[in-house]
Amino acid sequence: MKKIKEYIESNGNRFLEELFGLIRIPSISSESAHKPDMVKAAEYWRDSLLKAGADKAEVMPTDGNPIVYGEKIIDPKKPTVLVYGHYDVMPVDPIELWNTNPFEPVIKDGKIWARGADDDKGQAFMHCKAFETMMKTGTLTCNVKFMLEGEEEIGSGSLAKWVVTNKKLVKADIILVSDTSMISHEQPSITAGLRGLAYWEVEVTGPNADLHSGLFGGSVANPINTLCEMVAGVMDENNHITIPGFYDDVRKYTAAERRKINEAPYDETEYKNSLGVKALRGEKGYTKIERVGIRPTFDLCGIWGGYTGEGSKTVLPSKAYAKISCRLVPNQDHEKIGRLFKKYFEKIAPKYVTVKVTPLHGGQAYGCPTDLPAYKAAEEAFMETYGKMPVPMYSGGSIPIISTFEKVLGIKSILMGFGLGSDAIHSPNENYRVDHFFKGIETIIAFYQHYAK
Amino acid sequence: MKKIKEYIESNGNRFLEELFGLIRIPSISSESAHKPDMVKAAEYWRDSLLKAGADKAEVMPTDGNPIVYGEKIIDPKKPTVLVYGHYDVMPVDPIELWNTNPFEPVIKDGKIWARGADDDKGQAFMHCKAFETMMKTGTLTCNVKFMLEGEEEIGSGSLAKWVVTNKKLVKADIILVSDTSMISHEQPSITAGLRGLAYWEVEVTGPNADLHSGLFGGSVANPINTLCEMVAGVMDENNHITIPGFYDDVRKYTAAERRKINEAPYDETEYKNSLGVKALRGEKGYTKIERVGIRPTFDLCGIWGGYTGEGSKTVLPSKAYAKISCRLVPNQDHEKIGRLFKKYFEKIAPKYVTVKVTPLHGGQAYGCPTDLPAYKAAEEAFMETYGKMPVPMYSGGSIPIISTFEKVLGIKSILMGFGLGSDAIHSPNENYRVDHFFKGIETIIAFYQHYAK
Repeated sequence: MKKIKEYIESNGNRFLEELFGLIRIPSISSESAHKPDMVKAAEYWRDSLLKAGADKAEVMPTDGNPIVYGEKIIDPKKPTVLVYGHYDVMPVDPIELWNTNPFEPVIKDGKIWARGADDDKGQAFMHCKAFETMMKTGTLTCNVKFMLEGEEEIGSGSLAKWVVTNKKLVKADIILVSDTSMISHEQPSITAGLRGLAYWEVEVTGPNADLHSGLFGGSVANPINTLCEMVAGVMDENNHITIPGFYDDVRKYTAAERRKINEAPYDETEYKNSLGVKALRGEKGYTKIERVGIRPTFDLCGIWGGYTGEGSKTVLPSKAYAKISCRLVPNQDHEKIGRLFKKYFEKIAPKYVTVKVTPLHGGQAYGCPTDLPAYKAAEEAFMETYGKMPVPMYSGGSIPIISTFEKVLGIKSILMGFGLGSDAIHSPNENYRVDHFFKGIETIIAFYQHYAK
Repeated sequence: MKKIKEYIESNGNRFLEELFGLIRIPSISSESAHKPDMVKAAEYWRDSLLKAGADKAEVMPTDGNPIVYGEKIIDPKKPTVLVYGHYDVMPVDPIELWNTNPFEPVIKDGKIWARGADDDKGQAFMHCKAFETMMKTGTLTCNVKFMLEGEEEIGSGSLAKWVVTNKKLVKADIILVSDTSMISHEQPSITAGLRGLAYWEVEVTGPNADLHSGLFGGSVANPINTLCEMVAGVMDENNHITIPGFYDDVRKYTAAERRKINEAPYDETEYKNSLGVKALRGEKGYTKIERVGIRPTFDLCGIWGGYTGEGSKTVLPSKAYAKISCRLVPNQDHEKIGRLFKKYFEKIAPKYVTVKVTPLHGGQAYGCPTDLPAYKAAEEAFMETYGKMPVPMYSGGSIPIISTFEKVLGIKSILMGFGLGSDAIHSPNENYRVDHFFKGIETIIAFYQHYAK
């Protein structure tokens, strides 16, 4: 372990510089203008893997953004770890709230500030540098394969198809992923559950053109008013979702399981203060930890319609739109939920409007048994580097591709994340602790050592 | 009348060309980038009045956009007509729905297509050309004063102050305005009522930053969901507005009055077809004509929040916004309604959000007695040019400054409009019939002749 630490220490600045090179590529997958940046980011990863010591690494085209595949096979009889990560990032708006250029990383207060610093350039790149370190110090104990995609933030459509036709190529014993958070800097955790996702855009059309709100107001339905009324009815006074059949398949947890889930540390006052709110809102009958970990949601991620510019314009608009997402939990099927939502939304639409529901993306929830050998190896790795037993965490976030891996490849994933809740992923001023970047590299290396036993 | 018609005919093309010069100035009052265009449009009007034969005409500065004042006094003993109009126009978005450049007028299918073609450049400019015609044919029977403002579409704030300090300058017997529509090409009408307006922007704040909808969704209030729920509750199942006190001052109409109001022609099937809707929506207990003429409204003119770009972004936003307008009716006070709304909106806000209500503009409703001599003169003018008795119309639109004129100057206004419901004012592809432009000039001249008797 000593030579590993020494190698990391003497090459640390270069590790960061190489990560910064990746971050500087604005690979926003949801904006088509950034198409060329997706290829650039993939090529950067390929070159990094080759430099780190991969036998081979290539950029493999898909109908969407390319997939980077690389491998180092030391002995076919040894276990194979398949590393998964993504090189795409979220959009940066509202850009005016950033303190620095999101694509020019800076280190300040012990953190890297940039879009992708954590999610998932910073976290995925730790695996590249852990691999390099094991190669250069002769400590690699497993075969290793890398698989990086550029569509994680938009639903992993291409990778879901790619794994079907590349099952043999990516054959492995376990998938290792760093794209989640730990409970706190002091309390490591391993993500044992992930929520699924269904995401739609809805369009509500009233009159066939924008109208003068004075000449027509009062006699014709305003689609913004109607959209608001429609979505307002989706959650009842207990914050239960009213879509018929929505909860039918939701996994029920026993009293014992719920007790264990609620053992994760949580301070409500601190939580409210960190969000700047006087009160929380959530489903009746569940704790905050359960609400984000094991219960589904209904959130408007965006809404727009009519005049949204400076000053006032008295218009009765023709159309109103919303982007709606439901976080789902184990056993809920995102396609079934999509059908239920569409049917419900069309049913509650008053006859003075027409509605259109367009699915934008979806993914299934995921659960990992805490008695899996690879899960135990991850626990031991954390014990070694953090000196503390990591607790299993049920994350509210979604990595839809993880459940696809299980379904298509039959391989479980270990979600060994080093982010923090305060990293502002998907938000302005995303950041990632520099010490977590280096401690993460050490923990990943420790995982390989324990897993090989 | 023969020489008047001849003059209009031989100068018609020039009249249109001069109007086009005015339309080409993109004088959008709600967008501060167009500040210089406001001055240009005002200067264009001043020059047009001087050329038409005004004794004097000037651009008078205000704290906002300038006011154009011009006059021709032929005999202090004769009645004085004060012409009011506005040179500002509405914004043009959604620009992609225009078939032509909104600021490059074209004539097609007998109509002028451009922003302001009707509202109010086309209609106001008829008065300039009617004045020129009377001057050049020696038929002017009254003193005439012109007063044109550049803030009608944003609440007429500067003019409201300006008339207070220029009461003597604009002293007149009647105000003549063309900024409204007639019932149809075949059925002329005079607007006997106008609704008032109260317009606010609301801001709903949940958490202090945009959050990851997976990591936080379910445990913290989403301000878009909350905004939708709040506005959804403002109208009940009968489309009555639930703001306490909202209807307290609304003028009640007798059964006889309501019968007369409902004499205006109206075909529900045709109305629905023209709007492309299968059903209408409006306050229970009132007809369509009453709903837009004598009843107040609650409309969302705009809404926005969260991610509204291409594709999907799973964000739980910090803020959501809406632009809200209420059309008001005689006896309702827009400032009182503003106070009631603010109080109500703050009261219904759940404690997990904070709300801010910002008034953007407002104006009182207006009513004109149909037995006023000037109203009768307008009736006769229409009889002469359209060969048909105009019917009194209660318009749903607002010209807030009209009630200010009555309050400050003590002068009633005659609302002699030549627009049509199909002119798409405030919408893409605004248009104005060329024959209405010329027939309007003739009708205005006829008004002066009858009014002078």
